[in-house]
Amino acid sequence: MIIYKEENEIIKKALENLDIPDRVYIFDTTLRDGEQTPGVSLTPEEKIEIAIKLDDLGVDVIEAGFPVSSLGEQEAIKKICSLNLNAEICGLARAVKKDIDVAIDCGVDRIHTFIATSPLHRKYKLKKSKEEIIEIAVEAIEYIKEHGIKVEFSAEDATRTELDYLIEVYKKAVEAGADIINVPDTVGVMIPRAMYYLINEIKKEIKVPISVHCHNDFGLAVANSLAAVEAGAEQVHCTINGLGERGGNAALEEVVMSLMSIYGIKTEIKTEKLYNISQLVSKYTEIKVQPNKAIVGENAFAHESGIHAHGVLAHALTYEPIPPELVGQKRKIILGKHTGTHAIEAKLKELGIEIGKDINKEQFDEIVKRIKALGDKGKRVTDRDVEAIVEDVVGKLAKEDRVVELEQIAVMTGNRVIPTASVALKIEENLKKSSAIGVGPVDAAVKAIQKAIGEKIKLKEYHINAITGGTDALAEVIVTLEGYGKEITTKAASEDIVRASVEAVIDGINKILAKKEKS
Amino acid sequence: MIIYKEENEIIKKALENLDIPDRVYIFDTTLRDGEQTPGVSLTPEEKIEIAIKLDDLGVDVIEAGFPVSSLGEQEAIKKICSLNLNAEICGLARAVKKDIDVAIDCGVDRIHTFIATSPLHRKYKLKKSKEEIIEIAVEAIEYIKEHGIKVEFSAEDATRTELDYLIEVYKKAVEAGADIINVPDTVGVMIPRAMYYLINEIKKEIKVPISVHCHNDFGLAVANSLAAVEAGAEQVHCTINGLGERGGNAALEEVVMSLMSIYGIKTEIKTEKLYNISQLVSKYTEIKVQPNKAIVGENAFAHESGIHAHGVLAHALTYEPIPPELVGQKRKIILGKHTGTHAIEAKLKELGIEIGKDINKEQFDEIVKRIKALGDKGKRVTDRDVEAIVEDVVGKLAKEDRVVELEQIAVMTGNRVIPTASVALKIEENLKKSSAIGVGPVDAAVKAIQKAIGEKIKLKEYHINAITGGTDALAEVIVTLEGYGKEITTKAASEDIVRASVEAVIDGINKILAKKEKS
Repeated sequence: MIIYKEENEIIKKALENLDIPDRVYIFDTTLRDGEQTPGVSLTPEEKIEIAIKLDDLGVDVIEAGFPVSSLGEQEAIKKICSLNLNAEICGLARAVKKDIDVAIDCGVDRIHTFIATSPLHRKYKLKKSKEEIIEIAVEAIEYIKEHGIKVEFSAEDATRTELDYLIEVYKKAVEAGADIINVPDTVGVMIPRAMYYLINEIKKEIKVPISVHCHNDFGLAVANSLAAVEAGAEQVHCTINGLGERGGNAALEEVVMSLMSIYGIKTEIKTEKLYNISQLVSKYTEIKVQPNKAIVGENAFAHESGIHAHGVLAHALTYEPIPPELVGQKRKIILGKHTGTHAIEAKLKELGIEIGKDINKEQFDEIVKRIKALGDKGKRVTDRDVEAIVEDVVGKLAKEDRVVELEQIAVMTGNRVIPTASVALKIEENLKKSSAIGVGPVDAAVKAIQKAIGEKIKLKEYHINAITGGTDALAEVIVTLEGYGKEITTKAASEDIVRASVEAVIDGINKILAKKEKS
Repeated sequence: MIIYKEENEIIKKALENLDIPDRVYIFDTTLRDGEQTPGVSLTPEEKIEIAIKLDDLGVDVIEAGFPVSSLGEQEAIKKICSLNLNAEICGLARAVKKDIDVAIDCGVDRIHTFIATSPLHRKYKLKKSKEEIIEIAVEAIEYIKEHGIKVEFSAEDATRTELDYLIEVYKKAVEAGADIINVPDTVGVMIPRAMYYLINEIKKEIKVPISVHCHNDFGLAVANSLAAVEAGAEQVHCTINGLGERGGNAALEEVVMSLMSIYGIKTEIKTEKLYNISQLVSKYTEIKVQPNKAIVGENAFAHESGIHAHGVLAHALTYEPIPPELVGQKRKIILGKHTGTHAIEAKLKELGIEIGKDINKEQFDEIVKRIKALGDKGKRVTDRDVEAIVEDVVGKLAKEDRVVELEQIAVMTGNRVIPTASVALKIEENLKKSSAIGVGPVDAAVKAIQKAIGEKIKLKEYHINAITGGTDALAEVIVTLEGYGKEITTKAASEDIVRASVEAVIDGINKILAKKEKS
């Protein structure tokens, strides 16, 4: 793994003289704070599956949930505790006997108990004095320790608490038996310099390990977590995809890759599993990861602009800080209006077309011009588009005869009608008719085509992009077909979702059959 | 505006003794680096509209594009230059005469010219020596200055360049006439501490203003930009929604809100316009903003968990760092498995149901239990769900008779069939039949229902969540209807997209008619 602290003199210089831990513990709270993401609700089965994957990923602690919040939550936590994972299992509990009892009953290894300490929370939420809050905290910690369970104690809203009072609270917590203290930036107001200062101040007085829990309200959760580590924090709370309340928590994938690849700090994370777990969590929480998201976004290792694609093709690290495989991703070269000649040359090569052999320089220039013109119209340029342009410019070359043409299709559905479709396809010179029923009109239509084509080509994936607007908005369908050892992805758009689906499927079939003939 | 530097002793302490500028200039590169986001392509018209909105927002500089990249790009930039906006208009150009000429021809106020300086880029991309690179840079800067145009000079991949060479390059650039130098962290490998160190070192030698341009590959773009400002940088490059190559650039909304609300630094940004421009850019680029995105995400001011909703209802700042209105957002209280009693009480009140008046304490407890149980199943709890639960628990209260029932629907479509639908609705006791054609089966079905119901209820928005899996995957449709002064959003899911759409619409109609009768 590249370690920038070693390779980069600016980073090396900036970090010298700091006493940074060699090893940082990753406390994952995807199943607790992550699940508190508004609108997210995981079933016990989903929580259990994610816990197993987190353990597999190598996190040190899994905060499995907030036991008192519901019966389903308790059921899931109990089950996770019974799995005998490598990771320590933690449960959240307010500094309240009832919460703690329920957590103990779940069988957790560690209880993360908390009470708010900031003036705002004391006055408006808890309506309690500074002294009362310390008393409650101490009582809770002692109660947990009596049961022989490890305690992590959080002063909620620590970063908006009076510094001397905060340190007093933590001291009392440690005296009462807290094994680790956690510093939550509950509403994400810290900046790295302030976080460093704060942890440094706390570390002067507190001798148990320090943990941080950062929120992302200003987009600084990851940087604040790293600043805490620079000051000596040994544990970081994070969530997959940066899920969590409001702007989310520190993203595990960003924290881990920064720690390991910039600072050269050890963790137990198997980084090549990051992308997969990100996808799994996104699927179950139904919270999409934006394409321009570091490490796990669809664009994190994608290149379109001429300069970047050219650089990456010459040497990947020119425009990639780390190799995509390190986090389980793949490099993508995308064509569009910003594409330069190098990327187009590479794409043509991929399609089996070589400059100087299959096409000449003038033809190549014309192809580049047309691809950029298509991009200028606000369109993404697909492989199919490139082939069509090549075909048009070069004439005879790469001529893709459409083997299959849609002659006719009719579909009906309703509440008292079984969705039914009939198709007539012209396959080479023969007219082939068939019909099928399905769970809906799209399903019926695609099944009817499938029947007419035979078993050798299969629909592997079907995707509709989200549609917003009116019922007459454009629906974009993307299908992946598999057959004759090839896998082809095609796309079609229409206001009629059935027609878009059919068009994409027929296009894909043609592409597979054409490639089959060429090879 | 809350300024945390003034309110928060930790931040105040951490920032004392630093020489931070009072005013920072916001250089927006949404239309250049943002547009280089793989897969994004804006039409000239879209670019122009976004430029007007950026000017309206108050950015100081708009990097309108990379003129040489395409003809459409030049057309858009020319038009933007002719608008006489308050913002300075900048165009990107490699340190190459051709690029610069095209930029000049567009009529830009400032040219942002660059050449890479890092060993990797010198060796693999440019294949040039250190001396050659300086020569090219100087020549380009002088050439631009001869035309009387302001020059911003970037040493591409500055943060991976030998520090002494980097400073030499910048010195020569300033001698050649560069008005401002920009420090790009091209592949996003910096950490805030290193960025601070770097800018500090450059500032010792360079007397023109310093700008930074940070990429987000490790999730640190915003923090690195702020660290540069702490060291005296006066201009920050950013993009709306953090768009850009790979993991994106520093997000404008996060940089600006941090500068203004944490550091108390002045900018010209009208912060209450941030959410709207974020939405506009997302729409045109087709790059969704993830819900857990700071400042402009859908969840940035949403609260579901019991503790948070309770806190926010008592005093908003307990769980919000800034008021949502400051950035043009709204607070949302969401019900789900993590919901506590306070949020449910608030939601019932919103629905016109008061504890102690309409329902008793036992009934309330039962409602809370059922809402959480529904959440436990992995479901989001909608207003409709809450009403149904209340209905079920309380019996007579809030009884919502369904005024409209779907008796029959039939839809057909095909390539030689105009999409056609017929419906039979039972409206109170009358059977109403109608038919309609549309652009697709869903459109036809919804139009047929609309015809049967009459003009008083209108479909305001129609949305389908992205579908992934097979053609038999569940399609989730969300519709917003408007009528009788009410606006209602309903949701339905089915494997048949037509049936899901029809169900959601009929549900919505019933809700509007029920509310109409109550009021």
